[in-house]
Parts: sequence; C-alpha cells; structure tokens
Amino acid sequence: MQRRIVVVGGGPGGITAGITARRYHPEAEITLIRREEKVLVPCGIPYIFGTLGSPEKNLIPDTALSNNDIDLIVDEVTSINKAAKTLTTINHETLSYDRMVMATGSLPLVPPLPGVDLGNVFTAKKDMEYLQKLSQALDKAEDVAVIGGGFIGLEFADEFNKRGNLNVTVVELLPRCLLLACDEEICTRVEKKLSERGIKILSGRKAKALLGEESVQYVELENGQKLKADLVILGIGVRPNVELALNSGLEVDEKDGIQVDGFMRTSDENIFAAGDCTAKRCYLSGSPIAVRLASMGTTEARIAGANLFGIRRRVECAIGIFSTCFGDLAVGSAGLTERAAKEMGIDVVVGEAAAPDKHPGGIPGAKELGIKLIFERDTGLLIGGQVYGGATVGEKINFIGALIQHKMRADEVCTFQMGTHPMLTASPMAYQLVNAAQFAVAKLRKAK
Amino acid sequence: MQRRIVVVGGGPGGITAGITARRYHPEAEITLIRREEKVLVPCGIPYIFGTLGSPEKNLIPDTALSNNDIDLIVDEVTSINKAAKTLTTINHETLSYDRMVMATGSLPLVPPLPGVDLGNVFTAKKDMEYLQKLSQALDKAEDVAVIGGGFIGLEFADEFNKRGNLNVTVVELLPRCLLLACDEEICTRVEKKLSERGIKILSGRKAKALLGEESVQYVELENGQKLKADLVILGIGVRPNVELALNSGLEVDEKDGIQVDGFMRTSDENIFAAGDCTAKRCYLSGSPIAVRLASMGTTEARIAGANLFGIRRRVECAIGIFSTCFGDLAVGSAGLTERAAKEMGIDVVVGEAAAPDKHPGGIPGAKELGIKLIFERDTGLLIGGQVYGGATVGEKINFIGALIQHKMRADEVCTFQMGTHPMLTASPMAYQLVNAAQFAVAKLRKAK
Repeated sequence: MQRRIVVVGGGPGGITAGITARRYHPEAEITLIRREEKVLVPCGIPYIFGTLGSPEKNLIPDTALSNNDIDLIVDEVTSINKAAKTLTTINHETLSYDRMVMATGSLPLVPPLPGVDLGNVFTAKKDMEYLQKLSQALDKAEDVAVIGGGFIGLEFADEFNKRGNLNVTVVELLPRCLLLACDEEICTRVEKKLSERGIKILSGRKAKALLGEESVQYVELENGQKLKADLVILGIGVRPNVELALNSGLEVDEKDGIQVDGFMRTSDENIFAAGDCTAKRCYLSGSPIAVRLASMGTTEARIAGANLFGIRRRVECAIGIFSTCFGDLAVGSAGLTERAAKEMGIDVVVGEAAAPDKHPGGIPGAKELGIKLIFERDTGLLIGGQVYGGATVGEKINFIGALIQHKMRADEVCTFQMGTHPMLTASPMAYQLVNAAQFAVAKLRKAK
Repeated sequence: MQRRIVVVGGGPGGITAGITARRYHPEAEITLIRREEKVLVPCGIPYIFGTLGSPEKNLIPDTALSNNDIDLIVDEVTSINKAAKTLTTINHETLSYDRMVMATGSLPLVPPLPGVDLGNVFTAKKDMEYLQKLSQALDKAEDVAVIGGGFIGLEFADEFNKRGNLNVTVVELLPRCLLLACDEEICTRVEKKLSERGIKILSGRKAKALLGEESVQYVELENGQKLKADLVILGIGVRPNVELALNSGLEVDEKDGIQVDGFMRTSDENIFAAGDCTAKRCYLSGSPIAVRLASMGTTEARIAGANLFGIRRRVECAIGIFSTCFGDLAVGSAGLTERAAKEMGIDVVVGEAAAPDKHPGGIPGAKELGIKLIFERDTGLLIGGQVYGGATVGEKINFIGALIQHKMRADEVCTFQMGTHPMLTASPMAYQLVNAAQFAVAKLRKAK
C-alpha cells in the first residue's frame, strides 16, 4: 500500500520536509499544498528592493519539487479531520494522508499603533504581489521610515538606501539596533556603518503613532518628534501562523507556536510540524525562544521529514545563529549574548580577539575580523559567540554555532587544529577563534 | 625563585610557545633564541614574489615578543647539557634553563637530482637574504620551472606568473598536482584554473636532471623531454630540522622528527618541542604523518607552552587542514582524502553537494561552492572533507576540520543548525555541508 504524505506550506520548511521524506520513502505519494502561486526566498525579501531589483529575482524554483517527484497543489487548507486523516481545501477538495507535515510559517507582526492601516504602510509579507506594490511605492517615495532595527529592519533600510532616491530612517525601541542578537559593541559598529552609508538611526525611540490622511505622512515618536515619512515599513518581527493548527485542535501556544516533541511530532501522532510555525526552546534555558529563521526551519524539516514513519532523528534545542552584512561590514551571532546571559543569571567569562582576515596584514583586501566568545564560568562551556568582519563572517559564525552545539569548552577551543592561508584566513599566531578562547581561559584561571 | 624558560627557534611555533608560557607564568624569565635577524611569515613566502612584492612585507614583527616581555637573542644554539640544564651558542654564550621548548622548524627537502647545485636553483628557504636573491633572479629570468605541484609549488607558480615576465611550468611526479591533499576531481579543477591563468602543468612527469653550465638552463624529464628553464624552484616538501635534538641525545626519528608525548614533552622531561621539528601522528591510523604547517605548529606550541610546569593540555593527533587559492578559485582539504582512505583499507561513503555561496543565485558575486565529505561506512564517522569555492573556503574547511576533530557522524551533520544569509552563505535548503551529509546518509542506509 502506497504511503501518502501531505505537506502544508510551500516555504523552505515545507519544501525541505518534502525532499527529506522523498529520500527516505522513494515510493511514497508526496503532495505539497501551498497558497502562493510563486514562493519567495524569505531571507532574500529585503534584497529585492536594492541588490536584486525585483521580486521575480527572489523566487524558489518549483523544480525543487518536481525534481523530487513531489506533487504541487496551489490551494488553501481550511480544515483537517484528524480521525479520518483527511483535509479539505478552500476549493472543496478533500485529500487523505497517512502523515502530514505542517509548515505554515509565520506572519509579520503588526503593532497596535494608531495609523498602521494608513496607505503606504507595509510589512515584510511573503507575497509576490504585495512586494511588487511595495516596490512601486518606493519608486514614488521620498522619506521612508523603518520601524524596528533588528536584522530585517536594518536590511530593508540598507537596501532602500541603495536605490538612491530615498531618505531612510530607522526607529528602534531598544537602546541599540540588533540588541536582541548582538552585544552593544557590535550594535554600535553596525549603527556607525549604517550612518556612514547615509541612513539615519534613531535607537532608543518609540513610535507612538503613524499620522496622515489616506496615506502615511509622519511617524510620531513618544518624545513628540515627528518624522516625515511617505512610506513606512514595519520590521518588528513575526508571529507563528497557527490558525490551521488551532482550528484542527492541535496543541498550540499562540505566541510560541505549534507544540512539538523532540521528533517534531505535534499532539497528533500523524501530524508533524516544522519551521516558523513551531514552538522552539532555548538550548541553554529550555525556555521558549523566538528563533524564526529559514535556516532553523529547514533543520526542523530535515528531522520531521525523516521521522514520518519511524523515528530517526531528534531536534536539538535552538541556538539561534544569525548573520547579515551592510556594505563591507558583516556581523554574526550564535547562542546567547553576554547581555542576555547575564540577564539570565549566568556568570560568564568573555574572550575577545581581532586580527586581519588575511596575513600578513599587507595582503590586499585584508580586513579586520573580530571574535567575541562567551563562556559559562563554572563549566567553561561555550554558550555564545559574535563575529564582525568581511565575507567569511557567515561561515565563521556557523562554525562557532557548531562548537556551541557540540558543547565545546574554552580549553578545547584553545587547542583546536585549524588551517591557515595568507589569502583566506588570519595568521596561525593571530587566529581569532583560538586566541579569544585563550584569553577566556586566562580569566577562568585567575578566578580559581 | 624565578623560573627560566628558553625557546629555541623564532618561527610561529617558537613565538606562540613563548606567548603561551607567558600567559601561564607572568613572573618567569622567558628568552627566545633564533638564528635569523628577521623572521618571515612561512606561509607567506610564495606571496612575496607576486602579491606582496618584497620579503620585507612578509615579516613577523618582533613586537610579538616584546609585547609579551620575551627576551630575544639572535644567535645559534650549538649544544645542550641536559643534566646541567644549560645550552651553549655559537658565540660561546651559556644560558641555563628550567624548561626549554625546541621549535627548530623544518628545512626544504632537496632531491638527489643531478644538477641541483647549479646556479639559479632555489628552494623555499625561510631566509630573508636568500629570498631577496631569488627575487632579483626572477627579475632577469624568462623560463621558470617549479619542481613539485603541492600547495607550495603551485603557490610559487601562480605568484611567479603574476609578475608577467615569466613562462612558468610546474613538474609534478604524481598523476595530478595536489594529489596528496585532495581527491582527483579537485586537483583537476585546480590544474584547469592554473592552465587558464597561463601556467603550464606537467603532472605525471618525473624530473631526471637539471642541466646547465654554471647556471641551470634545462630541466630534463624521464621521458626525455627537455624544458627550457633559467630558474628552477624545488617545492617538494620539507624535513624536520632535528640536528640540535639529535646532537643533544633526544629521541629523534630523522624522517618524522623529534619524538614527543601527548603533552609535547621530548624524551627529556625538561625539554618540550613544537612545530615542524616534531613527529606527528595521523588522527585516524596513529601512523606518522607529515603535517608540517604553521597552523599545526602553533597548536602544538599552545600545548607545549601551557604544560611547562604542570600538565594542562594534551595534543590530538594531526588531522591536516590545508587551504589555498589561485585567482578566484580557493580549495581546502581536511583529514583523509577518499583515495587515501581507500588505500588505507577503509570502507568509505562519500556525500557531495554544490550550490551558489550566496542566495538566490542572482545575488551579484555569487560563486559555486562545493563540498565533499568522506565518512567511514561502519561507524558513519566523518574522516575527511574537501571544499572548492571562493573567499569562504578557508573558514569552511576549518569548520569541517572541527567536525572531524569532534568525531561527528553523518547523521549529526544532517541536523546541524546553521545560520544563512543572502550575501554570506548558500540558502538553507541548499546548504552544502548538510546536504552532502544527507546524501551520504542515504547511501549508508541503502547499504544496510
């Protein structure tokens, strides 16, 4: 009897769950149902508006499905009958399944701000036509305000700025942009870079209202300041899209997402979930954590897709690994920041090292690369890391993420074997990762 | 009583041993003795002749010593009295020590080839004046032959070629250049790139003799071919510099190096050793292995320097992590190649994946990055990896090195949490490391 697998949701989580299932079940009938005619690369959305030029250049090709013999239905699931193992769509189709993967993703958070319904107020909605409208609106705009100075907000700001015709201002509630992901010194570095690139950064300011007639004209701040803005983008985060799960009677926390076990199973044994729609836990505290990233989503999907008819993989709690770049400055963060760890009550020891990313420093194109590592004092365990530098930052922070995941201690990082090359890395004497750990070990020793 | 530490050798191993010792012993008297007036960055040597322009731009500054309160003596140690714990130099100075670190490095291998003593035949000697002479000779040369197509040989060839005035030919004994570090498909990629850059690659050819009157004029190959060459560089590897250790009665294998235990202690309990002069073992087989890299040397030095007056760290057997680049093609290798593993009798499973190193692929500057992972079939353990691509290859291969070091299995790499970013990495769906592991897991399953 042929196994029937249905994936609900067409983003990176859904696609990866389908592909992974295919690898384990060559004979299964796999169907993916999604609402969207075309699917956007989620992390690419800000880049549509500067670097890429149009939403069409930021699509995930459907060959990812067809190459893996996954049937595509463009439709919307309205209800699930868990007992009968069937689902119904808005077009009144009924499909039966043996196992389902819910990958319904997330939706942009819209703050309860007076004026958010005015014209020319946008979010980072993963919708082709919506983003085309945003693109057209940007062509006519002059003053753009970005509400929210996290990764997405800053990426929008920098890409908008690349268009050349816009005055771009970022309004961030916290004392510094990026402060949920990075420590203050990294945040300051990024704010400085963005300012140099011509973007106005207003951190530590709270938006009170959006003002205008039909279309937005001003952002009013709590301090009374009024910013001219004929276009506003809200980049304050996302919430899990759990409507279908809720309506289907699955266990859901509306804020955190669909509850899943370590195998990515929901409260119904035949329904798995993966991606932005699921609840995640912090690798250190075990508390709920909002790591809604396509990267984490595909990791979950690789677990859900493998476990459908027999448990093969377990999910680790979320570390949270981010990277981004603005011009020639890239930054990355993995795990806890020093600030977050302290707020959590963890006694930490920090090690830092910076050096050129090529060697000797006179090699053309060499840029400073700096690493900060955060260790738990009592155990010496690596619990977080941050990097700033050039093109290698994305892989470097993944590397640090791997060390966190595999529970490395400071002393182990110190004697880590690495390769070095004049054109590609720091010198072996100055290798930042090892030296940052070495400085932390010295402090750990003093404390004893 | 003040502890006296003497380091013999001024390269990255010696300096790092001194600095590490200083971190643990703030009060100690630390002296470094070296022969050279100035010290070259070893891996930077080929880059002197193209990218950097002169040996003076490839120096390790002595501030690395002075900043750490390490006394420098430029002199040559001629003998050691282990019982008295004293050493004597060529200038008849006598120094006493409580602990010594030998970091005497390596010397270029000179093959027993007729004609190697002719004029204009050079090696990669770590000697400022010698390299200045090489630089001057290159200015007058027309046809240069590089004997040996390993990393150093190819780097010399590519840098010589950048000068514009030279016809450069590489002669490699093995069927492909780089074949000791990379599998054939990577080697072919590199050979193709170098050929496109104008370098003539003769692999699978053996040099039989160097011909000429006073100065070299031809390289004669075993197949009878005669290559015009008014300058020859021998890049066939290095041998450990063990003369002092041998004369001092330490346990030494002349081919492999000074024998050390897991704490980097020689056969004399007061003498440690680190760097190219020591014998190393393969992390998998435990057999001697010739990983003579500054990176490995500094790792050993961080262990030796920490252990002088109390054991704190242990060395892991050598993985061997290499990277290099030629124009826009960088390659890296860590651990065993597929070929070497098979020759060793290991049953392996290979996983491969390639994707653009930015996403979507239309992001300007995106380049293909490919990863090959080699797993042991019976255990699923990662035993080797290779990467080709752009600027991130150096850190990517270090990342793979870390996974080998920490004994990751294929299934663990599959569910690895990573961060991804349009400008900095592949897409999360196409993340090469995870997908390469996934392909290997699929093959491992089939085999069961």
